Amino acid sequence: MDYNNIINTIYFSLEKLKKNGEVATYIPELAKVDPNKFGVHITTIDHQHFSIGDANEKFSIQSIAKVLSLTLVYKKVGEKIWERVGVEPSGTAFNSLVQLEYDKGIPRNPLINAGAIVICDILVSSFKDPKTEFLTFLRAISGNTSIDFCARIAESEKQTGYKNVALINLMKSFNNIKNDIDVVMDFYYNLCSIEMTCKELSRTFLFLTTDGIDPISNKKIISESKSKRINAIMQLCGFYDEAGEFAFKVGLPGKSGVGGGIVAIHPNQYSIAVWSPRLNKKGNSKKGMKFLEQFTTKTQLSIF
Amino acid sequence: MDYNNIINTIYFSLEKLKKNGEVATYIPELAKVDPNKFGVHITTIDHQHFSIGDANEKFSIQSIAKVLSLTLVYKKVGEKIWERVGVEPSGTAFNSLVQLEYDKGIPRNPLINAGAIVICDILVSSFKDPKTEFLTFLRAISGNTSIDFCARIAESEKQTGYKNVALINLMKSFNNIKNDIDVVMDFYYNLCSIEMTCKELSRTFLFLTTDGIDPISNKKIISESKSKRINAIMQLCGFYDEAGEFAFKVGLPGKSGVGGGIVAIHPNQYSIAVWSPRLNKKGNSKKGMKFLEQFTTKTQLSIF
Amino acid sequence: MDYNNIINTIYFSLEKLKKNGEVATYIPELAKVDPNKFGVHITTIDHQHFSIGDANEKFSIQSIAKVLSLTLVYKKVGEKIWERVGVEPSGTAFNSLVQLEYDKGIPRNPLINAGAIVICDILVSSFKDPKTEFLTFLRAISGNTSIDFCARIAESEKQTGYKNVALINLMKSFNNIKNDIDVVMDFYYNLCSIEMTCKELSRTFLFLTTDGIDPISNKKIISESKSKRINAIMQLCGFYDEAGEFAFKVGLPGKSGVGGGIVAIHPNQYSIAVWSPRLNKKGNSKKGMKFLEQFTTKTQLSIF
Amino acid sequence: MDYNNIINTIYFSLEKLKKNGEVATYIPELAKVDPNKFGVHITTIDHQHFSIGDANEKFSIQSIAKVLSLTLVYKKVGEKIWERVGVEPSGTAFNSLVQLEYDKGIPRNPLINAGAIVICDILVSSFKDPKTEFLTFLRAISGNTSIDFCARIAESEKQTGYKNVALINLMKSFNNIKNDIDVVMDFYYNLCSIEMTCKELSRTFLFLTTDGIDPISNKKIISESKSKRINAIMQLCGFYDEAGEFAFKVGLPGKSGVGGGIVAIHPNQYSIAVWSPRLNKKGNSKKGMKFLEQFTTKTQLSIF
Repeated sequence: MDYNNIINTIYFSLEKLKKNGEVATYIPELAKVDPNKFGVHITTIDHQHFSIGDANEKFSIQSIAKVLSLTLVYKKVGEKIWERVGVEPSGTAFNSLVQLEYDKGIPRNPLINAGAIVICDILVSSFKDPKTEFLTFLRAISGNTSIDFCARIAESEKQTGYKNVALINLMKSFNNIKNDIDVVMDFYYNLCSIEMTCKELSRTFLFLTTDGIDPISNKKIISESKSKRINAIMQLCGFYDEAGEFAFKVGLPGKSGVGGGIVAIHPNQYSIAVWSPRLNKKGNSKKGMKFLEQFTTKTQLSIF
Repeated sequence: MDYNNIINTIYFSLEKLKKNGEVATYIPELAKVDPNKFGVHITTIDHQHFSIGDANEKFSIQSIAKVLSLTLVYKKVGEKIWERVGVEPSGTAFNSLVQLEYDKGIPRNPLINAGAIVICDILVSSFKDPKTEFLTFLRAISGNTSIDFCARIAESEKQTGYKNVALINLMKSFNNIKNDIDVVMDFYYNLCSIEMTCKELSRTFLFLTTDGIDPISNKKIISESKSKRINAIMQLCGFYDEAGEFAFKVGLPGKSGVGGGIVAIHPNQYSIAVWSPRLNKKGNSKKGMKFLEQFTTKTQLSIF
Repeated sequence: MDYNNIINTIYFSLEKLKKNGEVATYIPELAKVDPNKFGVHITTIDHQHFSIGDANEKFSIQSIAKVLSLTLVYKKVGEKIWERVGVEPSGTAFNSLVQLEYDKGIPRNPLINAGAIVICDILVSSFKDPKTEFLTFLRAISGNTSIDFCARIAESEKQTGYKNVALINLMKSFNNIKNDIDVVMDFYYNLCSIEMTCKELSRTFLFLTTDGIDPISNKKIISESKSKRINAIMQLCGFYDEAGEFAFKVGLPGKSGVGGGIVAIHPNQYSIAVWSPRLNKKGNSKKGMKFLEQFTTKTQLSIF
Repeated sequence: MDYNNIINTIYFSLEKLKKNGEVATYIPELAKVDPNKFGVHITTIDHQHFSIGDANEKFSIQSIAKVLSLTLVYKKVGEKIWERVGVEPSGTAFNSLVQLEYDKGIPRNPLINAGAIVICDILVSSFKDPKTEFLTFLRAISGNTSIDFCARIAESEKQTGYKNVALINLMKSFNNIKNDIDVVMDFYYNLCSIEMTCKELSRTFLFLTTDGIDPISNKKIISESKSKRINAIMQLCGFYDEAGEFAFKVGLPGKSGVGGGIVAIHPNQYSIAVWSPRLNKKGNSKKGMKFLEQFTTKTQLSIF
């Protein structure tokens, strides 16, 4: 399908919209970004690219990276990880402590902060040099050796990460953290600091559209069953307390980040990345959500 | 695809399993059912039927009917219904009052008890004779004029429905119920009392596999967009606090009932109904969940 | 002690205050009261009376009556009542369903709505004609045969009591209500409808200042131990989510009502009733709270 | 009054009881104590002493020390402290994060862990050398220069204090902690490590029975108003989720610790300390609670 017309039409209709929604300011570094940035990139399984706007500019992918650490850990450790983290939607604010205490330190799913921290803990247990290992994996699946952590962002996360430190200490009190807290958090802050362009992001997630085999390199990243399951988790848990809304209006598995990025995948079709830093009240990119809603409406493609 | 071999294999392997899990006893009528019943029926969009076990025996479909009342109301009233009920997973026990109070009387979604009661309230507002209207609709989409409410079950629901009466009164206190409480609850109890066979159930849900157009009668039941959205809601909210587990392991939109029934649909392929009355701790059919997990594994078909 | 000077000074200093705070409007009848009413009455154990302002005007004592129904039930049934209701502060909004569901239908204490309804249920179980029995008891302890239910208020409560109906149905679902819901609620609505003057109210609570023996009639109303325990419950649970504030600033056991009344007792000294309909955000009389704070400060009397 | 007979009678009747209830084991050091220790000491305002059992043996007073840090901070800083901590009962488990998150980092009261940590933070802000300052204060009010922190206990607390670290990080995220987290927690762990005998403990709390003036040294420890308010806080918040039970059965302001100690005061009469390490399910000394209940019953003295 030629997506050029469709993305052009939607892009320019959204450009005209009133500029509202706030850029995330919980870490100083994120607040510095130009709020009017807006980029879109589609990579199809047959190697086509469709792009518009600021699609080649790096931005902080933030929580989107949680899908990638999950992929590496799931690949390495297998189904045992589900003894330490659930697969159910969280149903409350994305870093709430309430549910975690109720569930005795087992986070609802691996895409909320607490769950991503548990995944980091398993990752730290699984590799001698977790940061290098993760970067190697990330560069392999993205086909891009320039992708890296951003020390500036990681440091900024650390300076303001009291709520995440509360989360990991609570889980440690329930014995669901096995490593030193500082080591795990250092990995977590670095994970959240990764920067990519829309083009890089959509290409990186392509293996999830094709049951775990990267259609460009033909390498098997992860098993078919695990690939489907990661998609299921993105579908149910990828948008904090707006997962239902996203499934309802967009109908694709995906993941958002507070940097204003969203990635979504259509099995056997394409991977799409959108970036626009202004967020709605639920912490998801305002323009990004609207773009994807109109895109699946106009292409009449959703998984449902 | 010839599903006969696959369903036979799974059916007999599960038959051998230890008979555990409890039949729902919260209403006396449900407790009377033979706990070892087990039936499966698949209806494909090209009119094929695959069946095994007690697939032609009527059982109480219970909460599965909530998808059908939602369909009728959504068709009649349109997107306005989302002002009175959400589309997010509930994240807690299926008839919890906690979330409802927190959300000021707006239920999280139309498939939990509170949300289904709001849908009943809208239905009562929308039709002069709601019960007749609903039966007419149900008989039309199922192509079966014998489908009916069960007065015995409805009465049994009413005698023990204190928690549901608590729910509707709480919502009325927030002004999210517009009609007389007794009238709405009478409809709700009747809705929960409907009996169907696996064959009837899988056939009834077929319109959701084909974007709202019944592939047998070729009649348009509901618009394409609404059909996709109902599927999205089933995917995220159809299994109480086990929606993530179902998406993760089965990967299809579906809905369960405490009578032990589950219906699931694969877009553009088939609708499948399973019935086995023993429930797991989350209130879903134990054998039914296992059957569907193995079925999508063996057919290598899931929406993800 | 001659309290005249002290109550005069405080009364006139508070009269000058800006008239803020809202009259309760959750039932239409309460909204009709003149918001600027303000009365105080002290009755001492040696039969002295000190009075100022609208102390002889009847007002709706509302939840204050819950102490009196508790007294009658406790006297009749004894310590067994604590199997069905607790004695701990509620810690959340006064008619919240959250805690009740968490505690499986056992209300935290007999002075929140849910607990008072359980007490009404026990009362209905204990007497053939509960309403007559309660009135007889109330007239005896108040020494006033004119005290009565107000049919107009009771009816108004009933018309808007959806949240209370939710509470009783929830408790019935946990089997903590033994009688017909309508009969119990009828008693509850009547209980909340009682009207008294400040003078009558302070005189009625006098038995709690003297270990259960009315110092005017010398009749034993309730045992010494039970009298002390009712005071302890008032101290910890008498002011919804402001019990700590009241203990901290006033230092006496007491009970408030949304009609703007507060009664407080000083063991072996006096019973004091204050009435001013404007409420603070926690649902307690604004001027009433301030009056009592200044009163115990100036008299240097608190139980601590 | 000669309390000797009364305490003897109760002591020996409780000695005969089945030895149940568990010693606190959340820190290794506490688990080492002999679970059958049992001591009682009363100090009256007229300098009389009544003692039985292990009243002269040191034990870890744990949370009881929170009343003393509150006293020092309240004396130094005044009513401003209530901007950062409330005075309401907590209504849930003693170190729950739920309420704290709901209340945006403001703990319900200064006697739960979170509140005590805020008080430690204010103390650290208020003094150049907080530990020395606190010890000096403590030795002055106890008239005992040997009282000290226990480094072994403090270290043990630190090794297992993940939940408390979660609490302080959560409060820091809400900007309700002003100092370095490690410094505040070091003070907190030391505070919890103080050891006293029953005799020392009852003597130390004597100033709260006499409106803030120590009746032995005649020194003013704190103002009358503040002394009454500390008593009110102990009454409503001194026993975690059993404050109502204690007020109901004992009727005195007091504070318990997980080391098995309880101190309670009767204004204008006496201060009593009880120690027995076996705890009930709510974390309070089993035998201690029973002793005090029988003591106030037999002496017919309670504040109500």
